[in-house]
Amino acid sequence: MIEPKVLKGFRDTLPEIMIIKKDLIKKLEKTFESFGFLPIDTPALEYTEILLGKGGGETDKQIYRFKDHGGRDVALRYDLTVPLARFIAANYNDLVFPFKRYHIAPVWRGENTQKGRYREFYQCDFDILGVDSINSDLEILLVIKNGFDNLNITDYIININHRKLLNSFLEKFGYLEKSTDILRVIDKIYKIGKEEVLKELVDNVKIPLKDGEGIIEFLNIEEDKKIGIQGDSIFEKLEKIMPLLNESGKNAIKELAFIFNNLKELNILQYFAFNPAITRGLDYYTGIVFESFISDRMEFGSVCSGGRYDNLTSLYSKNRVSGVGASFGLDRLLALLESKNIFLPKKSITDVIIFCLDENLTSYYHKAAEILRKNSINVEVFFEPKKIINQFKFAEKKDITYVMIAGEMEAKKSTFNIKNLKTQEEKKELTIEEIISIIKGK
Amino acid sequence: MIEPKVLKGFRDTLPEIMIIKKDLIKKLEKTFESFGFLPIDTPALEYTEILLGKGGGETDKQIYRFKDHGGRDVALRYDLTVPLARFIAANYNDLVFPFKRYHIAPVWRGENTQKGRYREFYQCDFDILGVDSINSDLEILLVIKNGFDNLNITDYIININHRKLLNSFLEKFGYLEKSTDILRVIDKIYKIGKEEVLKELVDNVKIPLKDGEGIIEFLNIEEDKKIGIQGDSIFEKLEKIMPLLNESGKNAIKELAFIFNNLKELNILQYFAFNPAITRGLDYYTGIVFESFISDRMEFGSVCSGGRYDNLTSLYSKNRVSGVGASFGLDRLLALLESKNIFLPKKSITDVIIFCLDENLTSYYHKAAEILRKNSINVEVFFEPKKIINQFKFAEKKDITYVMIAGEMEAKKSTFNIKNLKTQEEKKELTIEEIISIIKGK
Repeated sequence: MIEPKVLKGFRDTLPEIMIIKKDLIKKLEKTFESFGFLPIDTPALEYTEILLGKGGGETDKQIYRFKDHGGRDVALRYDLTVPLARFIAANYNDLVFPFKRYHIAPVWRGENTQKGRYREFYQCDFDILGVDSINSDLEILLVIKNGFDNLNITDYIININHRKLLNSFLEKFGYLEKSTDILRVIDKIYKIGKEEVLKELVDNVKIPLKDGEGIIEFLNIEEDKKIGIQGDSIFEKLEKIMPLLNESGKNAIKELAFIFNNLKELNILQYFAFNPAITRGLDYYTGIVFESFISDRMEFGSVCSGGRYDNLTSLYSKNRVSGVGASFGLDRLLALLESKNIFLPKKSITDVIIFCLDENLTSYYHKAAEILRKNSINVEVFFEPKKIINQFKFAEKKDITYVMIAGEMEAKKSTFNIKNLKTQEEKKELTIEEIISIIKGK
Repeated sequence: MIEPKVLKGFRDTLPEIMIIKKDLIKKLEKTFESFGFLPIDTPALEYTEILLGKGGGETDKQIYRFKDHGGRDVALRYDLTVPLARFIAANYNDLVFPFKRYHIAPVWRGENTQKGRYREFYQCDFDILGVDSINSDLEILLVIKNGFDNLNITDYIININHRKLLNSFLEKFGYLEKSTDILRVIDKIYKIGKEEVLKELVDNVKIPLKDGEGIIEFLNIEEDKKIGIQGDSIFEKLEKIMPLLNESGKNAIKELAFIFNNLKELNILQYFAFNPAITRGLDYYTGIVFESFISDRMEFGSVCSGGRYDNLTSLYSKNRVSGVGASFGLDRLLALLESKNIFLPKKSITDVIIFCLDENLTSYYHKAAEILRKNSINVEVFFEPKKIINQFKFAEKKDITYVMIAGEMEAKKSTFNIKNLKTQEEKKELTIEEIISIIKGK
C-alpha cells in the first residue's frame, strides 16, 4: 500500500474551504470585470530562460526546473508577472491597448515552508498595460477599494507612495549612491525601532546625525505603525516636502496630488494613506507604489500590493509597454477572512434533500428535484431506502436546512412533507410549488 | 532579447476565448452544485509513486517527472482521478459519505501533439463516492443531461452500457479468456468496417464464423453509427439478450433496466441510448459505462464519459470506496461550441465606456462609473483626453455598445450624453438614473 501523503508545502483543499475560496475568487472577478478587465491564462510550464530572464537572486533557487521529454529546459511559473510580460510580447498585435487583464492562477515556489508559507499558492493579478496616464494608476486604486468592499472588508487602509520621491530627496542631498544601504536599514524600523535605525544610519552608512534625522522625518516613519498619513494632512505633507525635491521629485508630488485630490473628490480619501516609507523592494517599480493593510490585522502583512512599472516587456520585445498593476494575496485574504469570521465554513451548498422512502418512487423523487433545480434550488436525492434516522443524520452532518419526504400516499397526491431542520417546523402534503415558495421565501 | 515563445503543446488563452471558457466552467459548476456536488482541489505536484501507482503503460512515458529541491521524485498530475483516490484515502475521516465532489483543473501529459492534442488541458470531473446503489449511477446520468441543457447543447445522445454484459456473454460461450483480443478487434469497427472485423475475429482470434456473427449481433454495432439503440427498442433488446447471459450478466441487465425505466418515467429517454459495444478501455470500470456524442459532430468523439468503479482507493487505503463518475472534456466542448457558433467570441465584457473630454472632470467620470457599477453595469473610463475620434475607435475595437460623454457643460447639470454604437442612436443630457434604465432596459 502507498501512503496517501501530499508533498511538504502542498495541501488538499477540502470542500468547506474550497467553497469560500471560490466565493472569494468570484467576488474579485466580478470586481475586475465591472472595470472592464478581461481574463487571460498562460501555461503553467514555460521555457526556463523566459521565466528567469536576467536571472540571479532568490528566484533561481526557488524555481521548479527540469528537463522535459524533448530535453527542453522548462520550469513552473513562480509568479504571474513574468508570464504576463511574455504574453504581451507574444500576442502584441492581437491585443487592444490600453489592455486591462486579470489572471487568477496557482504559482509554484520551492521556498522554505517554515513560516506557514506554501509551495503552491494562488496569485490574483490585475494590470492596465500600454498607458502612462496617472489616471490609470487612480483606477487601479479604485479597483482595490471596490475589491475590499465586495469582500465585505471595511477596515482597510491603502498606503500609497511614489518611487521617485525618496530617490529625488536623496539625490538632492547627495546620498543617492547610498540609497540601497539606506533603504536596507530603514526597512528594519518595525523590528529594531527608530533609535536603532538612526544609530545604524550614522555608524554603518556614515550619514551625519542631522541628515539621518531628516531622512526619518521625510519618511514619516514610526516603529509602532505601518499606516501613513491620512486625511488633509496628506496635502500638508506633500507641500512641506516639495521644496526638498528636484524636478523628478516635484513631478512625483504632482502625480500623488492628482491621486489624492481625486480620492477626496470621490469621498473615499478615508480608505487611503500617504506613506513615504513604502518602497516595495528596489527594482521593478518606477512610479506609484502601494500596500494595503487591515487595521486590526496588521500581522497578516499587505493583502494587496502593486505599483507602476516602466517597461514590462523589455526582455522579450522592442515594443515598450508600461503599465500599472496590483495583486491580491488570495491565500492571505482567505486566512484573514477566517480569522475575522467573515466567512463561515460551509459543509454543503445544498438547500434541500429529498429522502428515499421507497425505491419504486425513484423517478418521482428525481422529477421533483428537477423542478426545484429549474427554480435555482440546489437539491440532493438520497440514494438508498435506508432507515429514516440515518437519512436525517446525513442531512444534519451536511448542514442541510430542508428535508422533503414522500411515501406512496404523498406521491399519489403529487405532494411531499417538508421539514426545516433548523426550526424543526414540519408541514404535510405540500405541492412542489408550495415547497418552492417556502424554500425561496427563506 | 529572449524570444517570447510558448512550449510546444502549450498555449496562451486570450480574453475572447477565456471569457467563453469561464462561462462554460460557470455553467457546469452551477449544474454540479444544483445536485449538491462540492468543489475540491488537490496539488498540481504529487509524489511520482502516488501518481504512477502500479505503473506500466502509456502514463509512465507521458508524465512530467523530476527531482525537486529536496531530491524527492515528484510529478505533475496527468488526470484528476488518481489525485481523487489519494485525496479520499488521505481525508477519509473528514468526509461525509456518500461524498459528491467536482474538480475542474488543468492536467499535464507530455504526449504527441500531432493530432491537435495539448500537453496542458483542463479536466472537469464529477463523482459520487462511497455508495453502491444504482440510483447514484442514474444521478450521474442526470447531471450529464443537465450539463448539456445548461450549455444550450440540444442534440446530444448519452450512450450507456454495462461492463459485465459482454464479459458474461463471452463467459457463457467459453470465450472469456479471449475477451481482450475480441475487444481489440471490435474497437476497429469504425475504421475497418463490419466485414473486416468479422474476418479478423475468425482468422486471428480463431472464433467460428457463426459465433463471430453472434458477437457482432449481440453488440449491435454498425460501422456507420456510434449511437446505440434508442426508445422502446432498448427494452426489447435487453429482454432478447437476457437468456444469453449468466447470473452476473442478468444482474447487469436489471441495473440497465432500472436506469432506462427511470429515464423513461422522467420523460427524457430520447437523450439516451443503449450501446452494448461501448467498453471504455479494459481496466478500471466495473459496472455502468457511458459516452456522449453530439449527433452532428460525431467527429469530436465523446464529450462526456465515465462509469462505475469498484474500489478507487485500494492502492492507498484499507477502506473500500466504490463510486461512479464522469468527466466533461472542457477543451473539446469549447471547440465544439465554437464549431456550432453557440458562443461567439467577445472582445470585451464592458457595457459602457465613459470618454475623457477634460482631465479636470476625472472624478466626475469615476463617480458616475461607480454608480453604474453599483447597478451591476460594467464600465470603463477612458484614461486620457485624446481626440474624440480615437476614443470612438477604441470603443469600436472593443465592441462596446454604449458611450457616455460629458464636458464641463453636461457636468454642471450632472448629466451625460449617451450614444449607442450599434444603432447610432444618441440622447443628450441624461441623468445617471436615466442612463441606467437605458442600459439595463437593453
